[in-house]
Amino acid sequence: MQRLSTRDPGFEEAFARVVDDRRESATDVAADVAAILKDVRTRGDAALAELTAKFDGHDLDATGWQVSAQDCKAAFDALDPDLRTALELAAERIRAYHEAQLPENRDYTDAAGVRLGAVWRGVDAAGLYVPGGRAAYPSSMLMNAIPAKVAGVERLVVVTPTPKGEANALVLAAAHLAGVDEVWRVGGAHAVGALAYGTARIAPVDVITGPGNAWVAEAKRQLYGVVGIDMVAGPSEILVIADGKNDPVHTAADLLSQAEHDPTSQSILITDDAAFAEAVAEAVESELSKLSTEGTARTSWNDNGVIVVVENFDEAPALANRLAAEHVEIATDDPEAIFARIRHAGSVFLGRMTPEAVGDYVAGPNHVLPTGRRARFSSGLSVLDFMKRTSFIQLNEAALGAVGPAAVALAEAEGLPAHARSVSVRLEK
Amino acid sequence: MQRLSTRDPGFEEAFARVVDDRRESATDVAADVAAILKDVRTRGDAALAELTAKFDGHDLDATGWQVSAQDCKAAFDALDPDLRTALELAAERIRAYHEAQLPENRDYTDAAGVRLGAVWRGVDAAGLYVPGGRAAYPSSMLMNAIPAKVAGVERLVVVTPTPKGEANALVLAAAHLAGVDEVWRVGGAHAVGALAYGTARIAPVDVITGPGNAWVAEAKRQLYGVVGIDMVAGPSEILVIADGKNDPVHTAADLLSQAEHDPTSQSILITDDAAFAEAVAEAVESELSKLSTEGTARTSWNDNGVIVVVENFDEAPALANRLAAEHVEIATDDPEAIFARIRHAGSVFLGRMTPEAVGDYVAGPNHVLPTGRRARFSSGLSVLDFMKRTSFIQLNEAALGAVGPAAVALAEAEGLPAHARSVSVRLEK
Repeated sequence: MQRLSTRDPGFEEAFARVVDDRRESATDVAADVAAILKDVRTRGDAALAELTAKFDGHDLDATGWQVSAQDCKAAFDALDPDLRTALELAAERIRAYHEAQLPENRDYTDAAGVRLGAVWRGVDAAGLYVPGGRAAYPSSMLMNAIPAKVAGVERLVVVTPTPKGEANALVLAAAHLAGVDEVWRVGGAHAVGALAYGTARIAPVDVITGPGNAWVAEAKRQLYGVVGIDMVAGPSEILVIADGKNDPVHTAADLLSQAEHDPTSQSILITDDAAFAEAVAEAVESELSKLSTEGTARTSWNDNGVIVVVENFDEAPALANRLAAEHVEIATDDPEAIFARIRHAGSVFLGRMTPEAVGDYVAGPNHVLPTGRRARFSSGLSVLDFMKRTSFIQLNEAALGAVGPAAVALAEAEGLPAHARSVSVRLEK
Repeated sequence: MQRLSTRDPGFEEAFARVVDDRRESATDVAADVAAILKDVRTRGDAALAELTAKFDGHDLDATGWQVSAQDCKAAFDALDPDLRTALELAAERIRAYHEAQLPENRDYTDAAGVRLGAVWRGVDAAGLYVPGGRAAYPSSMLMNAIPAKVAGVERLVVVTPTPKGEANALVLAAAHLAGVDEVWRVGGAHAVGALAYGTARIAPVDVITGPGNAWVAEAKRQLYGVVGIDMVAGPSEILVIADGKNDPVHTAADLLSQAEHDPTSQSILITDDAAFAEAVAEAVESELSKLSTEGTARTSWNDNGVIVVVENFDEAPALANRLAAEHVEIATDDPEAIFARIRHAGSVFLGRMTPEAVGDYVAGPNHVLPTGRRARFSSGLSVLDFMKRTSFIQLNEAALGAVGPAAVALAEAEGLPAHARSVSVRLEK
């Protein structure tokens, strides 16, 4: 963990390094992934079966290519009742937030008599990548699947690796709850390729979302334009802006809630109270020892954790904007004052009683958020990622008379006479 | 030009080929572009100067790296008055449409006492690529720059190649009108790299939009995630759905308005009237001979043009949805009836007096639209491409008491104890 203070003469250089280091590891898998995608595009299901045998150690023809809807329902029915209630509360709140997010169609006629508008529609089919292993979270299933269904997606397809054929029961239960239509036992770059190009068994989709390893992320990047994709995601991050009135244990727990995700996760505290900074550092140590995820969390904190002591919180927004973090907690008396000056953040958690983890599960907003400083230009997952907009225009003779001549003049100036004629032939009497 | 009829026994196969052929030429420039981007990232302005000397044949230090604001204003002031009025009308109408498109922020407290919301903000800086040569259109400058400015982008940067140092005066005039902040005389993949990574002279931007050749498109694709980009664009397309009551010359002019863009453009007519189909085919021939763009338009029409005769217009929406065309004109008595069944289209032009070209210039909606069947999942350029959304959450003690226990249960089920503790330590009394 790195301790910085804005009073230090070397602060600017050290902080710039923290900002610039926030890049993904440049695992160069582009060529491997290109070869896999080509293979899946050419050989379809045969390639999927071979790659699944190789990477996941099972025979799709024996284990079954799909997990059935009945199996998903059975997993849901078998949930511990408290957990089922929690999952249902999460689903209900996520659905409500995303329903309120649905964009409105427009249709109006302006002063020139031109009718203008836009219609939003869900895509026909969406594919969700659900990782196996450590990152197989039922909450991620809800956060990807529910916005798609709210957007009006008719066919919602999950691909997920099932090492040795074993599927994650919690994820299947969440798939049932979210209304997923198909679950395929394939993972990796080849599964992403199958979703984009389609195979004999798996019909192609229009949009692919969901987290994955470097191969999955690269496959999505390479297929951008063949399908729509959500933003490429990197390691998780939290920035906590907290004054000395907070309980150090609360702040420590919040920092560790990101650190336990992955050794590459990053937790940063900005405080105006040097004594509080030390109290949090101590609380992190005592909290760490209580966690079953101690190993991961400790590595993350030791390698990537940062505590910045500022002279006062006036300095905080500029630092936060440079970090453009995925999650920003503001635990001060007047969080609104700082929030108003934060331009770049995936999601902001206001006040002392809003730990970031409530946003991961039950608050309602999406937990798929821009990482690696991408909050400068991108947004969390939303219904818009599963929708597209068609604009429309309608003119009558009077409206074309009003605006048509300008179109003719511009088309001629651009050297496009057929554009000009398509208007002028209609203006001739 | 290809003539199809849904009555033909071979129709399904032939139409499927039309749909599937709608792919971009797979010019493989990925490796070249990766090398150029690496060079610009490493050597910055020195690389830009060398590549500009090589591709555009001028010395940036001699011609000047930037076109000054005064030069853009001078180009605007020197416009023919009619053309200036036309450009101003276009700018005003584009601005009005995109202002109406601005998304609303949300801020509400739900029944559980949880405050939820989202704030939209413009990105800090955007870069627009403006091609040199054939595709240097002032209308494209307006269609990219005005949404960025409406979105609230503070710094709007244009890069454009100026072969032999010569800039396109119309484009500079449009840059002045649209309020562009910087115009750099650099083009190609290296210019895109400079916008994304920044150089000593050119500060980096957050979003890059605008059309370009295969190198430019590939550079944007490779930089997706480093910056935000608009959708990769392919050759322009129009689908005209027209009955026999239209003037064949009007329909022919509309088909040719796309054909004249590029030899790879595609124009398709769907009609329920075989005699009208022949009349349009004849009108295309006579119209072609009137065009200064005849060569391009004829190649496009001969190579890619299609006329489909349907039994009746009930068949049209399904065909249109498979094509998912950039532009769809519906010139029938009741265009609304067909429009209601079209799920996939970039922009729709309703009625007999709405030639697509009015949308290119003066109607108001954006003319940057999804091509190559991407209307299945993507939308035309809008203010949203230059904005990002930050969600926010605020709980008090009561709200955390209401929803917190569910978060604890889910975090524990996912094996994330620090997530659980960040909530439970706040619930303890």
